[in-house]
Amino acid sequence: MDKHAYPDTTINLSGTFYTVQRGWTEIVKPQTRFISRIPLDRVAVLVGTGSRVKKEIEEKLGVSLRIDSKEGLVETTPRPENAKNWDPINLFKAKDMVEKMKLYDEGEDFLCVHSLKSRPVIVLNFKTYREATGEGALSLAKIAERVRQEQRVNIMVSVQHTDIYRVAGSVNIPVLAQHIDAREPGSWTGHVTAEAVKASGAVGSLVNHSERRLTLADIGACIAALKKLDLLSVLCTDTPETSAAGAALAPEMLAVEPPELIGTGIPVSKAKPEVVTKTVELVRRINSEVIILCGAGISSADDVARAIELGTEGVLLASAYVKAKDQYGLLTSMAKAAIDASRR
Amino acid sequence: MDKHAYPDTTINLSGTFYTVQRGWTEIVKPQTRFISRIPLDRVAVLVGTGSRVKKEIEEKLGVSLRIDSKEGLVETTPRPENAKNWDPINLFKAKDMVEKMKLYDEGEDFLCVHSLKSRPVIVLNFKTYREATGEGALSLAKIAERVRQEQRVNIMVSVQHTDIYRVAGSVNIPVLAQHIDAREPGSWTGHVTAEAVKASGAVGSLVNHSERRLTLADIGACIAALKKLDLLSVLCTDTPETSAAGAALAPEMLAVEPPELIGTGIPVSKAKPEVVTKTVELVRRINSEVIILCGAGISSADDVARAIELGTEGVLLASAYVKAKDQYGLLTSMAKAAIDASRR
Amino acid sequence: MDKHAYPDTTINLSGTFYTVQRGWTEIVKPQTRFISRIPLDRVAVLVGTGSRVKKEIEEKLGVSLRIDSKEGLVETTPRPENAKNWDPINLFKAKDMVEKMKLYDEGEDFLCVHSLKSRPVIVLNFKTYREATGEGALSLAKIAERVRQEQRVNIMVSVQHTDIYRVAGSVNIPVLAQHIDAREPGSWTGHVTAEAVKASGAVGSLVNHSERRLTLADIGACIAALKKLDLLSVLCTDTPETSAAGAALAPEMLAVEPPELIGTGIPVSKAKPEVVTKTVELVRRINSEVIILCGAGISSADDVARAIELGTEGVLLASAYVKAKDQYGLLTSMAKAAIDASRR
Amino acid sequence: MDKHAYPDTTINLSGTFYTVQRGWTEIVKPQTRFISRIPLDRVAVLVGTGSRVKKEIEEKLGVSLRIDSKEGLVETTPRPENAKNWDPINLFKAKDMVEKMKLYDEGEDFLCVHSLKSRPVIVLNFKTYREATGEGALSLAKIAERVRQEQRVNIMVSVQHTDIYRVAGSVNIPVLAQHIDAREPGSWTGHVTAEAVKASGAVGSLVNHSERRLTLADIGACIAALKKLDLLSVLCTDTPETSAAGAALAPEMLAVEPPELIGTGIPVSKAKPEVVTKTVELVRRINSEVIILCGAGISSADDVARAIELGTEGVLLASAYVKAKDQYGLLTSMAKAAIDASRR
Repeated sequence: MDKHAYPDTTINLSGTFYTVQRGWTEIVKPQTRFISRIPLDRVAVLVGTGSRVKKEIEEKLGVSLRIDSKEGLVETTPRPENAKNWDPINLFKAKDMVEKMKLYDEGEDFLCVHSLKSRPVIVLNFKTYREATGEGALSLAKIAERVRQEQRVNIMVSVQHTDIYRVAGSVNIPVLAQHIDAREPGSWTGHVTAEAVKASGAVGSLVNHSERRLTLADIGACIAALKKLDLLSVLCTDTPETSAAGAALAPEMLAVEPPELIGTGIPVSKAKPEVVTKTVELVRRINSEVIILCGAGISSADDVARAIELGTEGVLLASAYVKAKDQYGLLTSMAKAAIDASRR
Repeated sequence: MDKHAYPDTTINLSGTFYTVQRGWTEIVKPQTRFISRIPLDRVAVLVGTGSRVKKEIEEKLGVSLRIDSKEGLVETTPRPENAKNWDPINLFKAKDMVEKMKLYDEGEDFLCVHSLKSRPVIVLNFKTYREATGEGALSLAKIAERVRQEQRVNIMVSVQHTDIYRVAGSVNIPVLAQHIDAREPGSWTGHVTAEAVKASGAVGSLVNHSERRLTLADIGACIAALKKLDLLSVLCTDTPETSAAGAALAPEMLAVEPPELIGTGIPVSKAKPEVVTKTVELVRRINSEVIILCGAGISSADDVARAIELGTEGVLLASAYVKAKDQYGLLTSMAKAAIDASRR
Repeated sequence: MDKHAYPDTTINLSGTFYTVQRGWTEIVKPQTRFISRIPLDRVAVLVGTGSRVKKEIEEKLGVSLRIDSKEGLVETTPRPENAKNWDPINLFKAKDMVEKMKLYDEGEDFLCVHSLKSRPVIVLNFKTYREATGEGALSLAKIAERVRQEQRVNIMVSVQHTDIYRVAGSVNIPVLAQHIDAREPGSWTGHVTAEAVKASGAVGSLVNHSERRLTLADIGACIAALKKLDLLSVLCTDTPETSAAGAALAPEMLAVEPPELIGTGIPVSKAKPEVVTKTVELVRRINSEVIILCGAGISSADDVARAIELGTEGVLLASAYVKAKDQYGLLTSMAKAAIDASRR
Repeated sequence: MDKHAYPDTTINLSGTFYTVQRGWTEIVKPQTRFISRIPLDRVAVLVGTGSRVKKEIEEKLGVSLRIDSKEGLVETTPRPENAKNWDPINLFKAKDMVEKMKLYDEGEDFLCVHSLKSRPVIVLNFKTYREATGEGALSLAKIAERVRQEQRVNIMVSVQHTDIYRVAGSVNIPVLAQHIDAREPGSWTGHVTAEAVKASGAVGSLVNHSERRLTLADIGACIAALKKLDLLSVLCTDTPETSAAGAALAPEMLAVEPPELIGTGIPVSKAKPEVVTKTVELVRRINSEVIILCGAGISSADDVARAIELGTEGVLLASAYVKAKDQYGLLTSMAKAAIDASRR
C-alpha cells in the first residue's frame, strides 16, 4: 500500500459520509473536521490503555476524536470549549498527531519527549552514501523498521532530502531530514524548508550536523520552525560547551559528536568519555528535558552500551550501519545492548 | 499509474520471458540486458520517423533495441562490435535514453542540445513557495505537462529536492533539481548529490541560482558531475561577464538573471535589454552550443517574446507562474509567444 | 608618538641597564624579564590606590613589578614561588597586563569583567563605512578617545582589520576587531586569526555580528581562542534564546541585536523592549558574569539610557556615530546618559 | 622612514609653495594639483629613458607632471585638452601612478600588464602562518624586497589584512591582500573592501584562493571593484576549465593551483604538467593578455623553471618560502631560475 496514493475523497465514517479534507490551506470553520486513515494496528495505540492517548490529545488540544476501528478512520473535530486559549491551529495539530501514530509501538506512550525518554534512541544517519540513496535508502530503512518493531527501541532513520517521500511513504519508521535551511517558504531556490520536509513525510530533522554546520542564529530559527510544525529537532554539537549552548535552545534531542572522530570507528564513548560525561553535566544544568545522544565512531553494541552508561539516552551513527555486512544483525545487537544498558 | 510502483519482475517480451533488472549496481555480462517499460505514446517517439531515433541510439552506443510496441516494453542488449571504444556503461546509457523518452514530444529529435535548440525552452522554477510544495508542486507540474504537450514547447519544471520523486514519478515532464552540491556520494550529511537527484528521477539541475550561489570551483565540479551522469546543467549567472565565464564551462543551458530584478515583475528583457544582448554576444564568442535563457522579472507572453527577439532561446521564470491566478492560461500564452518569436 | 616606533633596545631602568625583549617567541628562563614603557599618566593607574592593582597582578600571576615612574618603565620578573601552579606564560600575561594599562582610567580597577562592569560600556562599530576607513577610522577613534577620557565611560572602537594597526598604534583607546575566523595560524589564506588581531594591537573582537554570522561550533572555537590569548569576546546574538545559548559559552560581553532593526535608527530598547528584558532574564539564569549590551537602532542619548534601564550594562552602535554630524557631541551626551542611567 | 608619517603640509616645489592635498575626497577644480613625494632613486624611473614613462602618463591621462628631482617631489596638474574623454578621476589616477613608482625597478616599464609581462612574476603568499604575522610579516617582506631589487624579478608579497598597513608602510615592494569581499563600503561588519586594502597601501589582491573560495558572481564583482580602483587582481583557479572561465573575467593575473597539491611540496609543474599546459592553452584562446602563474607545491628553483617552460609567466608560492631556513637563498635561486627560463 502506498500511503501517498490515498486520495482526497468522500468516505463513509461510521455510517455518515464526509469529505476528507487535506492540506494546510483550509480555513478552520466551526464545522471543519478532518478524517485521517491510519493503519489498523495503530488504532490500538491511539486508543491506548483506558483511552489514555486519545484523552490526552482531546484535552490538551480541545478536540474530539471519533475512531472507526474497523476502517482505521479517525474523525477530528474542534471542541474549543474544552481547552483554554483555543486556537484553530489545534485542529491541525490534532490531525497531525493522529497521523503520526506510526511513530511508536503499541503500548508505548505518544511520541513526545517523555515517550522518547522511556526507551533508548538510535538515530541512523544515511548521509549521502551511495548505498543509502534511492532504492538503497528504502532497503536500509526496511531493515531498521524490522529491528525497531522486534526490539521496541526508538530507531529512526535520517535520509537524504530526495528520499524522504519515498521512504516515509513505504516504511513504518520515523523519518528525519538530515538538514533544513532557516528559511520560511518563499523565494529561496535550492533551499529546504521545514514545511517541505514535513510535506514529504518527515517527522523532524537533524540540525547543525558537523558536515552541515549552521550559524547560531539559524540554529535558533530552525528549531523554532520545527517546533512550530510539531517536528522534532535533533541538534548536533561538537563540545560540552556548545552542547550547553545548544541545550538553551530546547531541541527535543541533542547529539554530541567530536568531529575528529566521525567516521573513524573510534567511539567517542571510549576515546573521549570525558566529553560525554562533561556534556551530560553541563547540559543537565540548563535543560533537564532534552534527550542526549552520543555520536562519532559508534560502531558496535559495546559502544552503544558504553554511551548509555555514561549518561546518555542513545546514539547517532552512520557509516557503521550503512557499510555493515549484516545490518540486521548489527542493529539488533545494538538495540539489545541499549535496552540492557538503560535498565542498569 | 505510479511508475515507482513498477517492480523488478519477470515479464513476457514478445513471447520470451526475461527478468527485469533495475538499478546501477549490476555488472554487465555478455548476456546482460535491460527491459524498460515506457508509456505507449512514447513508443512512436522512440521509433521515430524511419526508426531514426532508435538507430541513432543503437549506433552511437553499440546496443540493440527490441521494442514491443503493444506493451511499451524495450529490451536493450549490448552489441559491442557495432561501436568503437565500446564501454559497458553504454548499456546503462542506452537504457537511460530509452527511459528518458518522456522528455520530448513525438516527432522531435532526442533530448540533446540539438533537440532542445529546435524549440523554445521555458524553465519553471518552483522555488520554495508554499503553493509549490508537496501536493502543490504536483498540481503545478501537471498544468505545465499539459501545456508542454499541447504547445510542443520545451517546458521543464525545477522543483524542491523533497518533491523530485513525487513529481517525476507522476508527471510526464522533465524535472530539474534546483541545486546540487559539489559532492561525490559519501560522508556528507545534509547535502544533495547529482546521483541522488538522478535516482529520484530528475533529468538535470539548476546550478548557481542567484539564491544559491556556488564557488567557481564548485560550479566546475557540479557541471562535470552532471555531465558524467548524462544530466543537464542549467547554469545561472548575473552579468554578461560572468555569463561568458560560465559558457567556458560548457553547461547545456545558461540563464542570465540580474539578481536585482528577480521577483520584481520588471523583465530584464525590457529593463536591461543590453544585459541580454551583451550576454548573447560575449557567450557566443566562447561557446556556440549553449542554450541561452533569459531570467528575472519575466511575467508575461510579451516578456517571453522580447527575450527571444534579443537572441535567447527561452526563459527561466518562477513567481509569475507559481503565483498566477490562471497558470494554464499564462503558460499557454507564453508558449505561443515563444514559438511565434522564434519563427521570426 | 607612534608606539610601533618604539624599538627593542637597551635602556636604563632605575640605574641598571636592561635589554628590552619584545614579542612572544622568547623562552622564559629564570633570569628572563620584560621591560615595558607605558604612558606616564598610566603609572598612577598601575600603582593604584595603595598599590592595589600592582599587588593584584603580582599575586595572581607570581611576578614582581618594578616601576620607574619618571620614565614610565615597568620591569616584570618571575616570582614562581609566589603563585601556585606557576606557568612561564604568566610572565607574558603580566607584561601584557602592564601594557594594557591604557585600557582604563586612573582610579578604575583593572580591565577585567569586574572593572568593565563598574562603568557603562559603549562599543562603537565602524563597519566598513567609507567615512570610517583608513584616515577616517583614525579621526573617529580620536574623537572617541577624547570622550572616553573626559567622561570616564568604557568606550571602545571596533575597526576594520586593515585599520587595527593604524588605530591601535596611535590612539589610546581599546580597539576591537570586527570579526575573527575560527582558525589557528597556518595554511589559511585570506583568514583572520586571533593571533593576527592581537599582533596588530587589538584587545578583543566582536564575534558573530549579524553581518558576519558564524556557526555555533566556530563561535565556541573563537571565544576559546580569544580567551587563550587574553582577548575580550563581544558575542552578538539576535534573540533572547540565542543570547541564552551564547551566554553558556562565557564571552566577556554579549550584545543582543534584532537584525531587522540594525541601521534603522529605531532602537530595540524602544521598539522591542521585551527582547531586551527577556534576554537579560534568560542570560542571567545561565551566566551572571557576562556584560550585556543592547544593539540595533541605538542613535540617541535617550536610547542609551533606556537600554541601561532595561537591565543592560551598555550599548553597541555603528551608523549613528559614524554618520553623525557632531560625533563628539553625540558621544558625550550618550556617555553622560549612560552614567546617569547606571546610577539610578 | 615611515611613509605614513608624511603629513599633509605646505611645501616648496621648485620655488613655489603648494599645499599638498591627500586622500580621495577632494573635488577636482581647474586649479587642483597634487604634490607627491617619492624616493629619490625612483625619480629616474619616473623620468625613464627619454622621459618615456613620464610622457606615457601625461599623454594617456591628460595631465602634466613637473618633477623636482632634488627633493623627489612631483606636481601633477590637469591638462584636459591633451586627452580625449578626459575625466577628473584621471588626476587621481596619475597621482597614484606617480606614487606607485616603488613598484618597479629603474629601467623597467611602468607597472602595467605589459610591464609585468616583461619580467617573471613571483607572488609570495604569507597565508596566516604564525611566522608570517605582524613583525614576522615585516621581516619576510624585507627579505623579498632585497631579492626583488637585486634580481629585478617581479616579486610581490601577499600578507594578512592586519599586516597590510605595517608592511606597505615600511617595505618597498608591491603588497597584495590575500582576499577581498565583494562588498561596497557600507554596513558590512567584519568584511574587507577593495577600498580598505587600498587605503592601507595594497596594490591589489588575490581573489578566490583555494582556501577562500568565492562564488562566480562575487569573483566578477571583486575583479570589477579592483579594476575600478586601479588595483591588480590575481585570480586563483583549480582546473584548466575554471581557469578558462576565469580568464573571461579579465583579471591581470591568473594562478592555477590544483588544491590537492597545495602545501605538499609536490609541484604541479612536475606532478601534473598537463594541468598547466592545458590551462595555458584554454586560457590563451579566451584572453591573450592575462599573466598566467602556476601554484601548488612550488618549492625549488627547478619548480619555478619548469613552470615557466610550460608556458606560464611565473609562480605563486607560500609555505616553501615562509618555512624555508634560508629565505634569502631560496628566493634568490628561484628568481635566477625564473629569468633563465624566461630567456629560453
